[in-house]
Amino acid sequence: MELSKITSPADIRGLGMEELKELCNSLREVFLEKVSAHGGHVGPNLGLVEATVALHYVFDTPNDKIVFDVSHQTYIHKMLTGRVEAFLDPSKYDDVTGYTNPKESKYDLFTIGHTSTAVSLAGGMAKARDLQGQSYNVVALVGDGSLSGGEAFEGLDEGATLKSNFIVVVNDNNMSIAENHGGLYSNLEELRRTNGTASNNYFKALGYDYLYVDKGNDIEALVEAFRMVKDINHPIVVHIHTDKGHGYKPAEENKEAFHFSAPFDLKSGKLKSEDDDESYDEIFAQEMMSEIKSDPKVCVLTAGTPGVMGFTPERRQEAGRQFIDVGIAEQEAAAMASGIAKAGCRPCLGVVSSFIQRAYDQLSQDISINDTPVVLNIFYGTILGMNDVTHLGWFDIALISNIPGWIFLAPATVEEYLSMQRWAMKQTQYPVAIRIPGGKVLHSDDKVETDWSDLNKFKIEHEGSKVAIIGAGAFLSIAKETAELLKKEGVDATVINPRYLSGLDTAILEDLKKNHRLVVTIEDGVLAGGFGEKVSSYYGTSDMKVANYGLEKKFADRYNYRQILEANRLTAPQIAEDVVNIIKN
Amino acid sequence: MELSKITSPADIRGLGMEELKELCNSLREVFLEKVSAHGGHVGPNLGLVEATVALHYVFDTPNDKIVFDVSHQTYIHKMLTGRVEAFLDPSKYDDVTGYTNPKESKYDLFTIGHTSTAVSLAGGMAKARDLQGQSYNVVALVGDGSLSGGEAFEGLDEGATLKSNFIVVVNDNNMSIAENHGGLYSNLEELRRTNGTASNNYFKALGYDYLYVDKGNDIEALVEAFRMVKDINHPIVVHIHTDKGHGYKPAEENKEAFHFSAPFDLKSGKLKSEDDDESYDEIFAQEMMSEIKSDPKVCVLTAGTPGVMGFTPERRQEAGRQFIDVGIAEQEAAAMASGIAKAGCRPCLGVVSSFIQRAYDQLSQDISINDTPVVLNIFYGTILGMNDVTHLGWFDIALISNIPGWIFLAPATVEEYLSMQRWAMKQTQYPVAIRIPGGKVLHSDDKVETDWSDLNKFKIEHEGSKVAIIGAGAFLSIAKETAELLKKEGVDATVINPRYLSGLDTAILEDLKKNHRLVVTIEDGVLAGGFGEKVSSYYGTSDMKVANYGLEKKFADRYNYRQILEANRLTAPQIAEDVVNIIKN
Repeated sequence: MELSKITSPADIRGLGMEELKELCNSLREVFLEKVSAHGGHVGPNLGLVEATVALHYVFDTPNDKIVFDVSHQTYIHKMLTGRVEAFLDPSKYDDVTGYTNPKESKYDLFTIGHTSTAVSLAGGMAKARDLQGQSYNVVALVGDGSLSGGEAFEGLDEGATLKSNFIVVVNDNNMSIAENHGGLYSNLEELRRTNGTASNNYFKALGYDYLYVDKGNDIEALVEAFRMVKDINHPIVVHIHTDKGHGYKPAEENKEAFHFSAPFDLKSGKLKSEDDDESYDEIFAQEMMSEIKSDPKVCVLTAGTPGVMGFTPERRQEAGRQFIDVGIAEQEAAAMASGIAKAGCRPCLGVVSSFIQRAYDQLSQDISINDTPVVLNIFYGTILGMNDVTHLGWFDIALISNIPGWIFLAPATVEEYLSMQRWAMKQTQYPVAIRIPGGKVLHSDDKVETDWSDLNKFKIEHEGSKVAIIGAGAFLSIAKETAELLKKEGVDATVINPRYLSGLDTAILEDLKKNHRLVVTIEDGVLAGGFGEKVSSYYGTSDMKVANYGLEKKFADRYNYRQILEANRLTAPQIAEDVVNIIKN
Repeated sequence: MELSKITSPADIRGLGMEELKELCNSLREVFLEKVSAHGGHVGPNLGLVEATVALHYVFDTPNDKIVFDVSHQTYIHKMLTGRVEAFLDPSKYDDVTGYTNPKESKYDLFTIGHTSTAVSLAGGMAKARDLQGQSYNVVALVGDGSLSGGEAFEGLDEGATLKSNFIVVVNDNNMSIAENHGGLYSNLEELRRTNGTASNNYFKALGYDYLYVDKGNDIEALVEAFRMVKDINHPIVVHIHTDKGHGYKPAEENKEAFHFSAPFDLKSGKLKSEDDDESYDEIFAQEMMSEIKSDPKVCVLTAGTPGVMGFTPERRQEAGRQFIDVGIAEQEAAAMASGIAKAGCRPCLGVVSSFIQRAYDQLSQDISINDTPVVLNIFYGTILGMNDVTHLGWFDIALISNIPGWIFLAPATVEEYLSMQRWAMKQTQYPVAIRIPGGKVLHSDDKVETDWSDLNKFKIEHEGSKVAIIGAGAFLSIAKETAELLKKEGVDATVINPRYLSGLDTAILEDLKKNHRLVVTIEDGVLAGGFGEKVSSYYGTSDMKVANYGLEKKFADRYNYRQILEANRLTAPQIAEDVVNIIKN
């Protein structure tokens, strides 16, 4: 059938098996057309074309509920649920997000972007359904990679106790973003090898009924399996064996690179433009490979995102057992790092800002209370990074800087970063987090300290008077730009690089009182709970005025960098304008 | 042997089996003597007497490493590792904490208090041991209750991939604090029933070798088992079936009440003094039982701590499926609550302040981004609550109030609390968190609002001039007391109850500028990232002075309430003194 005619899953429910196969081919084709031009999650969607069609074919959506884990594999789902135009018409490519989104469609139940949540969310829906005496199917679709997250375990453990319909579809493509890690994956491998008959069975051990579908890219097999479990009266796991990247050779052959891809040439599978700008993933990886080689006690940890930190398959191979991927399990990464440090090695953990939220308790309890010298690198902790509402890098300042014990550093340049990283790895006194700067990679003009153990020493980049501008991390550049603009207004503003987010340089702040009337703070994150508020509090009972710049406490989705900065008066001209107004009063 | 002569585990390693049995009896006797007089974790320790002795008898501690999960079951361990005086001599009862503590002994590896962390921490130690080419035993001891936590799963999953010695002792007493919940527990039951031979085996499915010990309170069986696994060259789970409360009838018969107990009469097992003061666990439970009865859509969730919220076994029974205990799994509790709300029911989740840290990401992603009207009650969120370093109730203000979307309410009295709770359960617009006040239960003098949907409206409790004191939650009483003292100094201070921690009443704050020069904020938690800093930031560029009172960002262990308040100038006389000094300048 013509894809443009699909307005809802009802439109495909009358199709015969051959037509369904054709439909899958068309969907795959259109999908590839879009992602090759636009970029997006390639492999996860290709592997799930048939399963998505089969789910909507068999289940009575939207009455029956499907919750997609991470939901980066829902492009086909969107095409079947009234949003196909956003795939057919290049001018509408951006009309849909890359994740499920209830604002787009009633077929999307939650806004999801973090892993391992679907089973819990779906389990809650099933509970509510039962309490209300309703009787629809509740389906959670979760990838094998997501099963390494503790929340997925907790959801499975609780879901197994439901005495009613609960269907967990495990989409097993034998891959996380990179390869899987964890004992569980030997079990999944055994289950695949034995066509689901292995005596060890993780899902059965948790109390689930179990159905294995080896041909997870065969629409017929899937339709049959889903028909078998539809309206079932107890919890069951349907374990489907799919092929990540299925139907597109470059993605089948290079699953990690095609998990998410920038625009690529459809024929060759090659990226349309290679990004050869300097980047912190490379800088981090080169630095840590050198540390690894020079000291067998050094190890680098990731929770399922080695690519974010430049640890390519080749580097992982080379690092050997000094590189540890714990699976998508940030709690484990943090707690294990504490154990590693306690027993005398030097762990360095790299985590995306938005995902470190999953390990708050471990940063506090397992690490800080235990004074273990874990080094944590925060990637994408910036307004100028990922802009999906589920992946915002805005909250890590408030998260980490308010936990006692952590030294939280905000380098503004590569040289500062490297110096801090080396110091952090060498010292054994504190847990140290380093916020990798967002935006364009910048370099220092002058010499950078090598010892950061004299805590909370801000650096005066330029000494002026009347107004002092403290710009943290990447936003030191906005502070400098603001000072330039103020010069034109006859104000010679002091510019300060705080470098530490976890404490104030009270000596400098005190000193500013002598010949400054206004302190401006600029930070690359949300104001609430952040750095600037602490400066305001410090000066609370003095005559110093303080103006804090950062984001308002509010989520945003797929925002434009320029616009969000302007809306929050976070550009140099706006700040300079405000400063002039404040000091003239 | 005489207990007083035990200075280290080496002292018991020469004993014969009969002597070990006698030792266990003596340890149990002395332990009971202490906890009955002093209070503490009763059941967990009684069940583990034999296993603790056997571990130290067989393993070469401290060269071999034992990491205890939660570590509330380490009283016997402390008696064997040079700290027996703290159990024999009542004047020294408080010389040791109730958890492992490296500051006390080299036999204690970590300061632990939250559940489900030991396997991860021990796994990290094993990794570091291997990287350094060392060869000691690493043992994690974890209770069955703790296995419901996602971090424990993540630790087991990763630990299974070690290619070296790693011993996980699962202390299965078939109890969490209350009864267990989750599919996993059917599997443990099956394993117990089949003497470990059931074909479904959670641990084997994760890749562990496995040894079952049915007689977990038989020192001989335990010594034999631990000898079998000592120096093993791969990961193994030793599943020991113990009896919570073993050897003390009242604790065997009432496992939940004796998990942790205040001082009790050793003979009868009855509490020495019944606390019949008003308390929020009762107030919460009565309120929610009434909601449950009047609306089948209401449900109350706990993550393994029903007692904290007054949900006694009787009430749980009565609430039926409207009461949901997900096990010690805060992530699941929060995410599931979101699913429940999404599907039309009204979930109310009760969590201890220190444990909500484990669900930050779920509060943000699963709930707030999805606008699901989950109601969250924070228990023990106060300086005046639990004072172990691992259980501090100081951080939830910064944690929750900085997440967009959450309405965070701070009632000061029972009447305010009940009014907020009722409103929160009725509305369906926001996720609402309510911070149950710490300290003595207080009542309102005047009428309390019933509608809290007009957000961020502070209440002026007393209108004065010059100085305004904003006292949040329980600390409104300090604000009032301060105002009383200031009266004597000729200052008629305005007193404000903010009631909302997640936003400012800018109208009132603006209005204060007219005839106030100083705003004082007082909050029951850490200043960093908290409420007061936001008030300081608000007034930053005005002439208003602001003084923030709360705790310094620093951990404390087993502190004295009075002392910590004084050290942070959080008492009314200190604040009044400061105010007089500030305004006279």
